[in-house]
Amino acid sequence: MVPAVDLVADLGESFGAYTMGDDAALLDLLTSANVACGFHAGDPRVMDTTVRACVERGVRVGAHPSFPDLAGFGRRAMDLTENEVRTDVLYQLGALSAFTRAHGTRVAHLAPHGKLGNLVVTRRDYARAVADAVEAFDPEIVILLQEGELAAECRARGLRMAMVGLADRAYEDDGTLVPRSEPGAVLSDPDEVTARTVRMVTEGVLTSRHGRDLPVRTDCVQLHGDGPEALRLATRIRAELQAAGVRLAPLDQVLDAPAA
Amino acid sequence: MVPAVDLVADLGESFGAYTMGDDAALLDLLTSANVACGFHAGDPRVMDTTVRACVERGVRVGAHPSFPDLAGFGRRAMDLTENEVRTDVLYQLGALSAFTRAHGTRVAHLAPHGKLGNLVVTRRDYARAVADAVEAFDPEIVILLQEGELAAECRARGLRMAMVGLADRAYEDDGTLVPRSEPGAVLSDPDEVTARTVRMVTEGVLTSRHGRDLPVRTDCVQLHGDGPEALRLATRIRAELQAAGVRLAPLDQVLDAPAA
Amino acid sequence: MVPAVDLVADLGESFGAYTMGDDAALLDLLTSANVACGFHAGDPRVMDTTVRACVERGVRVGAHPSFPDLAGFGRRAMDLTENEVRTDVLYQLGALSAFTRAHGTRVAHLAPHGKLGNLVVTRRDYARAVADAVEAFDPEIVILLQEGELAAECRARGLRMAMVGLADRAYEDDGTLVPRSEPGAVLSDPDEVTARTVRMVTEGVLTSRHGRDLPVRTDCVQLHGDGPEALRLATRIRAELQAAGVRLAPLDQVLDAPAA
Amino acid sequence: MVPAVDLVADLGESFGAYTMGDDAALLDLLTSANVACGFHAGDPRVMDTTVRACVERGVRVGAHPSFPDLAGFGRRAMDLTENEVRTDVLYQLGALSAFTRAHGTRVAHLAPHGKLGNLVVTRRDYARAVADAVEAFDPEIVILLQEGELAAECRARGLRMAMVGLADRAYEDDGTLVPRSEPGAVLSDPDEVTARTVRMVTEGVLTSRHGRDLPVRTDCVQLHGDGPEALRLATRIRAELQAAGVRLAPLDQVLDAPAA
Repeated sequence: MVPAVDLVADLGESFGAYTMGDDAALLDLLTSANVACGFHAGDPRVMDTTVRACVERGVRVGAHPSFPDLAGFGRRAMDLTENEVRTDVLYQLGALSAFTRAHGTRVAHLAPHGKLGNLVVTRRDYARAVADAVEAFDPEIVILLQEGELAAECRARGLRMAMVGLADRAYEDDGTLVPRSEPGAVLSDPDEVTARTVRMVTEGVLTSRHGRDLPVRTDCVQLHGDGPEALRLATRIRAELQAAGVRLAPLDQVLDAPAA
Repeated sequence: MVPAVDLVADLGESFGAYTMGDDAALLDLLTSANVACGFHAGDPRVMDTTVRACVERGVRVGAHPSFPDLAGFGRRAMDLTENEVRTDVLYQLGALSAFTRAHGTRVAHLAPHGKLGNLVVTRRDYARAVADAVEAFDPEIVILLQEGELAAECRARGLRMAMVGLADRAYEDDGTLVPRSEPGAVLSDPDEVTARTVRMVTEGVLTSRHGRDLPVRTDCVQLHGDGPEALRLATRIRAELQAAGVRLAPLDQVLDAPAA
Repeated sequence: MVPAVDLVADLGESFGAYTMGDDAALLDLLTSANVACGFHAGDPRVMDTTVRACVERGVRVGAHPSFPDLAGFGRRAMDLTENEVRTDVLYQLGALSAFTRAHGTRVAHLAPHGKLGNLVVTRRDYARAVADAVEAFDPEIVILLQEGELAAECRARGLRMAMVGLADRAYEDDGTLVPRSEPGAVLSDPDEVTARTVRMVTEGVLTSRHGRDLPVRTDCVQLHGDGPEALRLATRIRAELQAAGVRLAPLDQVLDAPAA
Repeated sequence: MVPAVDLVADLGESFGAYTMGDDAALLDLLTSANVACGFHAGDPRVMDTTVRACVERGVRVGAHPSFPDLAGFGRRAMDLTENEVRTDVLYQLGALSAFTRAHGTRVAHLAPHGKLGNLVVTRRDYARAVADAVEAFDPEIVILLQEGELAAECRARGLRMAMVGLADRAYEDDGTLVPRSEPGAVLSDPDEVTARTVRMVTEGVLTSRHGRDLPVRTDCVQLHGDGPEALRLATRIRAELQAAGVRLAPLDQVLDAPAA
């Protein structure tokens, strides 16, 4: 069987007079986009043009909700209550859905941004909050995640989820990420990152930093577009995945059990 | 035929640690509520609890979008482009719809708040922007308005609209409102306001400040809940409308020609 | 010698159309006020009128800086860098100083608000950040605090500081506060709170929740004005302190080493 | 006598994770900088590093206050009251002054940003508000402006002001700017802009778009740094002014009556 994978990146992170990223270039490489919803980045104009551009190129639109922290780009931990996270995520999901509706599509997936994305791995209350929001808004939405509390919550509820592969991060032997604070946590050699990505997708295996082969499921590969180098790497990863016979497809087609 | 009218008020205008209005008391009087969407007032928690309370009492939920101006409570004019108004309204509509979805209802109507509400009467670009947003999001949504550019825009497009009666405001002979800056623009005598409301609804007539009888259509009466006096007046208006044989009903039932 | 104490409360926590607290009533009871600086509450109009009112009544003005979190009223922990806290505090200090300058006074003290106020007790980086900001802006400013990291930092640098007595909180035997999450952490009996305050100021002693007498230094008593009951208690505490022969005076006069 | 002129540009307009302009390159060309104060751009970190960089290079720091409109970059008209503008400007002035204090300098001038800068030319209430704020905060501050209501207000009060020359804008015969909406309002030919600047400074003459020579006073030339082309033009203007024997100097030295 031909392996398939979704290619996703964060989009629509400009704000007002400020531009971030090269969305136009990234769009040609993706099958899905995580679109900022105004809490860490994005504004109604940016959301509107981003969703329109996604629809024009057949790229699926996902919500990229965040802590309410424009000044910190959603990268700073905030100690919110479970209800605050749940309602903040609902608000952002709804806001984005106005633009998907206006452009004739729907919110296909959700990927928590930045620090919220980190914390749903370890904080059960935040994991429940995100799962509650998705379930209440539209249980067909696929949640992009890594192993952890949110994954456990999705399994327990039967929510749709997709495992995101991070080819540029080092892993421990137990399959968890090496923390960013440690040396060697982020891999920067394009050859290595590309080779790891292809192996992760085609063989379902990732090598830990101590050389151990770990089995991994990868529904979706995260690409980056911050700067020409990142774009070149993203372009190369895409090309080598295709050269290795991998089919690039949106999540609906990648996941084993598509919604009815 | 028994005349019917909708009773509406602005709700959910608290924010964070700040409380505004006595929503619990008002809810008992209303058939519809204009719910703040976070731009002039309201936050995701307030929106969530307000929508839930509306659903529990059978009060219809409408969006109350505003200029992005929390510090000015949406009462200050902003010179936005048509596209900025359109996308700001879409964003707010969508955000509110997450909570109506979570609580098993829908956004039934939309009433532009504050200065935006004033300006859609005279600025065609803002009127088009609001109409575009509603049309793109859900053309079943009823737009609450007064005569002016937005009404003209709705008629031209066949969008659903409801005329809001302001019983506490003085009118010129030509049916326009006496500007708030002029003395006598706002009526404060409860007897007078109540009597005018009942007559407006049951006879379709309003007396101008020069004593002339003006024909008016009133689908919806605006109530206020800011303070005990306003609440008493709202309670009395409701009671006297019912005593006069008026049926209180949500807009869907009041409007002559519901959408297919 | 006649004991002297400063009476302080949080003021100027209204925002835009939202009112919080009864500042006018509180002002008559205070010698100092912690004025919100726009990050958790307050806006330029509120700051202007609050500072003017303080000056008119001879109440000293202090800065009440917070995490940047209007929606959470500064009560939610945020994981900022030391430099973020330092520059956020500088910004707020400066903003308030424009109004003290315009009204012919100066920023006399600083009291970190809410969660920031809690965290400077235990986080050395936040303590350093606040001390750095005060030192760079005006080393004559008195820092209101409780025992902990910020107090240690002030001692090490020779910064001016004042110990705030919280008469409505229970203490452990080691002089630390019983956490709010535990039952009995907040004392609500007005007789008890008043008696504790007077003893704390006149005898320098506070009884722990296990009945042990702890020596305490109290330069400043924190009052509250949220609601009629709190105002009544504040009024009573003030009266009984005076009846016990305590002199109410601004911090400059209470502290041993007044600024030149 | 050698003519002298100040070279100024807008600086510190980055925000959070967003970068705007090439401040490092611009700083080498300037004698003064208009530093954003957080309302349309800038944040406490950006303000801190910008003021530090100015001090290191001997560039004078000025406040660049704006309408409170981060999403619109302060370019959208807002209909505020005079008191709202006055207090918003005070707040921003004070906030910036914390950083000038921390870095051992002072706020030397103030230049209203964007739409506020446009409106102080024609709206007397806004002009009064800005003048009031400066007068209350520090009457030594020089106000950068063009002919209009704010200039009249400064003259009437004896406030210090400096005329800003805009070499890249076309003028009418009466000395007013051709509105940006009209074709030819903005001059883009580098030769023309440079020649106009030099003549404006050395001869005190500017040619209107109908070829008429207008007498102008230019204390300060506005440069731009948005993009490599703007930077090249700024570099060239500076070089040709110096080649023409013009002395580049901060405003204090350019103005006839330097502060005591």
